[in-house]
Amino acid sequence: MEEIPVQDLFTVNNLWMMIATTMVFVMHLGFATLEAGLTRSKNTVNILFKNTIIPAIGLLSYAIVGFNLMYPGADFAGSFFGFAGFGLTLPEGWDTSNYNAGYTYFTDFIFQAMFAATAATIVSGAVAERVKLGPFITFSILYVAFIYPIVGMWKWGGGFLNTLETPFYDFAGSTIVHSVGGWGALVGAFLLGPRIGKYTPQGMKAMPGHNLPMATIGVFLLWFGWFGFNGGSVLSADPGLVSKVFVTTCLAAAAGAIGALIVSYLKFKNYDITMVLNGILAGLVGITAGADQMGVFDSIIIGVVGGALVVFGVVLFDKIKIDDPVGAISVHLVGGVWGTLAVGIFGDLAGFDQVISQLIGIGAVGLFCFVSAFLIFFILKKTVGIRVDEKEEIEGLDINEHSMRAYPDFATRD
Amino acid sequence: MEEIPVQDLFTVNNLWMMIATTMVFVMHLGFATLEAGLTRSKNTVNILFKNTIIPAIGLLSYAIVGFNLMYPGADFAGSFFGFAGFGLTLPEGWDTSNYNAGYTYFTDFIFQAMFAATAATIVSGAVAERVKLGPFITFSILYVAFIYPIVGMWKWGGGFLNTLETPFYDFAGSTIVHSVGGWGALVGAFLLGPRIGKYTPQGMKAMPGHNLPMATIGVFLLWFGWFGFNGGSVLSADPGLVSKVFVTTCLAAAAGAIGALIVSYLKFKNYDITMVLNGILAGLVGITAGADQMGVFDSIIIGVVGGALVVFGVVLFDKIKIDDPVGAISVHLVGGVWGTLAVGIFGDLAGFDQVISQLIGIGAVGLFCFVSAFLIFFILKKTVGIRVDEKEEIEGLDINEHSMRAYPDFATRD
Amino acid sequence: MEEIPVQDLFTVNNLWMMIATTMVFVMHLGFATLEAGLTRSKNTVNILFKNTIIPAIGLLSYAIVGFNLMYPGADFAGSFFGFAGFGLTLPEGWDTSNYNAGYTYFTDFIFQAMFAATAATIVSGAVAERVKLGPFITFSILYVAFIYPIVGMWKWGGGFLNTLETPFYDFAGSTIVHSVGGWGALVGAFLLGPRIGKYTPQGMKAMPGHNLPMATIGVFLLWFGWFGFNGGSVLSADPGLVSKVFVTTCLAAAAGAIGALIVSYLKFKNYDITMVLNGILAGLVGITAGADQMGVFDSIIIGVVGGALVVFGVVLFDKIKIDDPVGAISVHLVGGVWGTLAVGIFGDLAGFDQVISQLIGIGAVGLFCFVSAFLIFFILKKTVGIRVDEKEEIEGLDINEHSMRAYPDFATRD
Repeated sequence: MEEIPVQDLFTVNNLWMMIATTMVFVMHLGFATLEAGLTRSKNTVNILFKNTIIPAIGLLSYAIVGFNLMYPGADFAGSFFGFAGFGLTLPEGWDTSNYNAGYTYFTDFIFQAMFAATAATIVSGAVAERVKLGPFITFSILYVAFIYPIVGMWKWGGGFLNTLETPFYDFAGSTIVHSVGGWGALVGAFLLGPRIGKYTPQGMKAMPGHNLPMATIGVFLLWFGWFGFNGGSVLSADPGLVSKVFVTTCLAAAAGAIGALIVSYLKFKNYDITMVLNGILAGLVGITAGADQMGVFDSIIIGVVGGALVVFGVVLFDKIKIDDPVGAISVHLVGGVWGTLAVGIFGDLAGFDQVISQLIGIGAVGLFCFVSAFLIFFILKKTVGIRVDEKEEIEGLDINEHSMRAYPDFATRD
Repeated sequence: MEEIPVQDLFTVNNLWMMIATTMVFVMHLGFATLEAGLTRSKNTVNILFKNTIIPAIGLLSYAIVGFNLMYPGADFAGSFFGFAGFGLTLPEGWDTSNYNAGYTYFTDFIFQAMFAATAATIVSGAVAERVKLGPFITFSILYVAFIYPIVGMWKWGGGFLNTLETPFYDFAGSTIVHSVGGWGALVGAFLLGPRIGKYTPQGMKAMPGHNLPMATIGVFLLWFGWFGFNGGSVLSADPGLVSKVFVTTCLAAAAGAIGALIVSYLKFKNYDITMVLNGILAGLVGITAGADQMGVFDSIIIGVVGGALVVFGVVLFDKIKIDDPVGAISVHLVGGVWGTLAVGIFGDLAGFDQVISQLIGIGAVGLFCFVSAFLIFFILKKTVGIRVDEKEEIEGLDINEHSMRAYPDFATRD
Repeated sequence: MEEIPVQDLFTVNNLWMMIATTMVFVMHLGFATLEAGLTRSKNTVNILFKNTIIPAIGLLSYAIVGFNLMYPGADFAGSFFGFAGFGLTLPEGWDTSNYNAGYTYFTDFIFQAMFAATAATIVSGAVAERVKLGPFITFSILYVAFIYPIVGMWKWGGGFLNTLETPFYDFAGSTIVHSVGGWGALVGAFLLGPRIGKYTPQGMKAMPGHNLPMATIGVFLLWFGWFGFNGGSVLSADPGLVSKVFVTTCLAAAAGAIGALIVSYLKFKNYDITMVLNGILAGLVGITAGADQMGVFDSIIIGVVGGALVVFGVVLFDKIKIDDPVGAISVHLVGGVWGTLAVGIFGDLAGFDQVISQLIGIGAVGLFCFVSAFLIFFILKKTVGIRVDEKEEIEGLDINEHSMRAYPDFATRD
């Protein structure tokens, strides 16, 4: 065997980044099964269709335009916007540590591309069961190809959030990924209005998810994927850092389950599996901004609070009649804001200046995403329309948009 | 790139241990789907709830108390008991090979923590469809936080089973993990009694699992996870040893399928998928104690016998009216005892002295777990009660303990 | 820590090959769920049974005979056939880079063994819902133990396809794996004839899959597994090569979804999730032969065309009344031929001579597999019969061959 010692560590680092990529890929299956499980069976094909097509579009659009918008490189980056041109162009030494100590150019691209589709997928859950397929895919393309990468550049591409005196900190994307999706989800759910029959003069009607095992599978797969999402965000296989991130991530998830269990039990005197599942996700979203900065105890607190907040969030959004079938806004927006703030409160970066920077980041990203999502959805609403008609919604999107049933062999309850 | 050659191998070893951790994590999803699939749909939410909360509690309690009970370190370890204090405390050099040639302190913790919840999850299957949620969670906390780590210390923490003249050998936990769960399962199923209507004067009534695809998914996920469970138990990425463990583990699983297929076909003249699935698991449990010690042929024999034993086990426990809805006792206790004994019969350690040591380990662990599980369950039974009332059991735990259905859209057969 | 620099890279390479092995293992779960999801619920247990037993048999038979048929080594290899004897025999230095710079002997075996069962699993989909269990398992054993390894040897074991003047090129097995399965699928579906009621004088009757979420889970798991299938075929953790293969593989899958979406929408004015799912698979099968040779743009074209071809394929085979319930022939045979040809048209090897060599490979493998599969199925048909009787087919195989239902709690639609 020839001796290539100098490349060994590079090979290990790159290997971890590639494996982390495959774990983040699994999150797309996690989102698909979670969302399908938490909605009604008459819309299941529609949800599967969206959640299969969005990653496909996300990967392709990120290759064509997104990657070079988000990471334009020093020559092209501004404070708010930069673009290095269409398509992927291999730089010199792309496959050696000359490109990066942790990974090759292609690994860089594919790891980042896996993140990109997440934003649109988060929106998908909140608008489920009544959004028109064509317009939603249009929204997704625009949101994934342009809005997500532009915001991402502000921090990870070297933009203005990274050059604040006390830089805004968002390790793996509580704000840059999850709240970007969360804002789109809020705007979409608001502009669409609630599902028919959800809020009536007699009160709120429960519209329970049709397949809770599938929802549970989804949450476990997301938890699994988060080891790659947060662990890969170390951008190398650094043993101390990645293993620490594993522990903080995992304990926050576990604590999120317990936080949601306690609050939902106290509020509803009931063991609600959907709250526990969303509590896990809120714990994960919450730890994401500071997974490398937190201690064991910090992580547990962040998770417990995240899990508790998700229960309050679900109740609150129902109170103001924002109909979010899967709880995506509570998990990704509330959880994302909480996690981003937590970086200023707990862990190695805690401090007043950091809190201010975190607020600036939350606000700037929120404003831009809210306005962008609003413009896209509003223009679509006023032109092609974004909501299926009443008959279609009542009968289900599967039979009307897809001429298919998800479970044609089984008799339904009504 | 700077040259850090001395840390290269450490980084690879640690990477494997972290990835193995994520694979063991997937086993919790495997258990959840297997157990839900093999039981009736009226209890599905309950099972998902248990199997989501138990890993969450397991991870947290292992951080708070379990890890330091199981691995107290030389200063605190006794022959039977040791404790290094509450919480996690980073030792000097925790993130370098000064801590361990194979992994960091945090990797050590999280890999071990993933194992811990397994024991309670195994019990969960045997007591399914009639155990009260609150008492079962109480049992789980006690079993995972105290019983499992104390037993684990006897061998892996340097206790008396490790210091026998011919040390008891249990590579990845046929006894230390699986039979610990199996004894709890046996005690739980015995103290609860069989499900209503299971054993009647007219004979045994089949209560078939409601979702066999989900059970199959569970077994494949467990098989996948076992590559991390056994492969990670090498405690480094040693190429020869880990790849050997992969081969022995995988062939034993395959042979377990064939063993169960043949015996169940001969006994019942039927191609029974649930027997094949449990045969795979029994093969895996069986190889676990000696996965690093066995040759190719040994592994196949161990798997075939394990798969055959599971069929006889299921029949036997039904005969003595121990009602185990998923076959957990046959898989984890019978399989675990078989695998532990097999270390004395096959492979590099085979010999009479080893058989004696294996019997000592099986007996000591069995006695302690049986008594502990009995005490916990018995006290719970005599105080708060461990079994739901008759109406609740007949209607299903989902509607009574959770006010939810797992599949609210589908019509049931009766 | 002792210094073992010379072994570091070997340990990393071997680690990647082991992890890739586990990913290919997951493909067996992917096939099981995809095939079960795309067929009717009355045959689900049967499909799960086949797809659990086949990998078990495949692993064992590959250990006993297949590995030494496919990789007989220089001493035993001929142009068309070679055999190094029964069982596995550890060579000197099997666990060091003396055996191979990328992996140990056991890693080599287990990675290759995971591929072997694939061929029979592909056939399984095409013959679903009417094939007799016993004869199909007989076919599988023969096909996996002999036909697949013999064909594999022609290229990967150093046989005549590898020694053509311009060697036939098949990076990870568009021909050597997927079309081997595809030819068996074609022969099986042809000799069995269509399912009762599929093609009537009034036209073709749709027989929709009973569980589209499960089919979607299957495709995502296959996509996940393909990172190991193609990425592992690099046979080391080479950062540049593996990351390139990740990108080409992933973009071809995404493009396959889009290709199938566009063509199926134009043809049927419908958003057909099953076409999109098969489009992803066809993109993956298509890129497999040249995943290491293609650029970003090439991969997208190969995927789009693969996705489009699968729609035409499904229509074509229905027109000629070859009843393939899951579209396996279109995905694996049409996609496999396309991908193999594409190596001559796109990427680094493109050229007329290469096209000729690719055609030779496609033809030689096709001829041998077609004839072998025909002989096996034909003899079985004329002796024990390969098709269940009419009553059994109409009632379902589950109740007749397994005395079980996959979902006993749920009421069916009719």
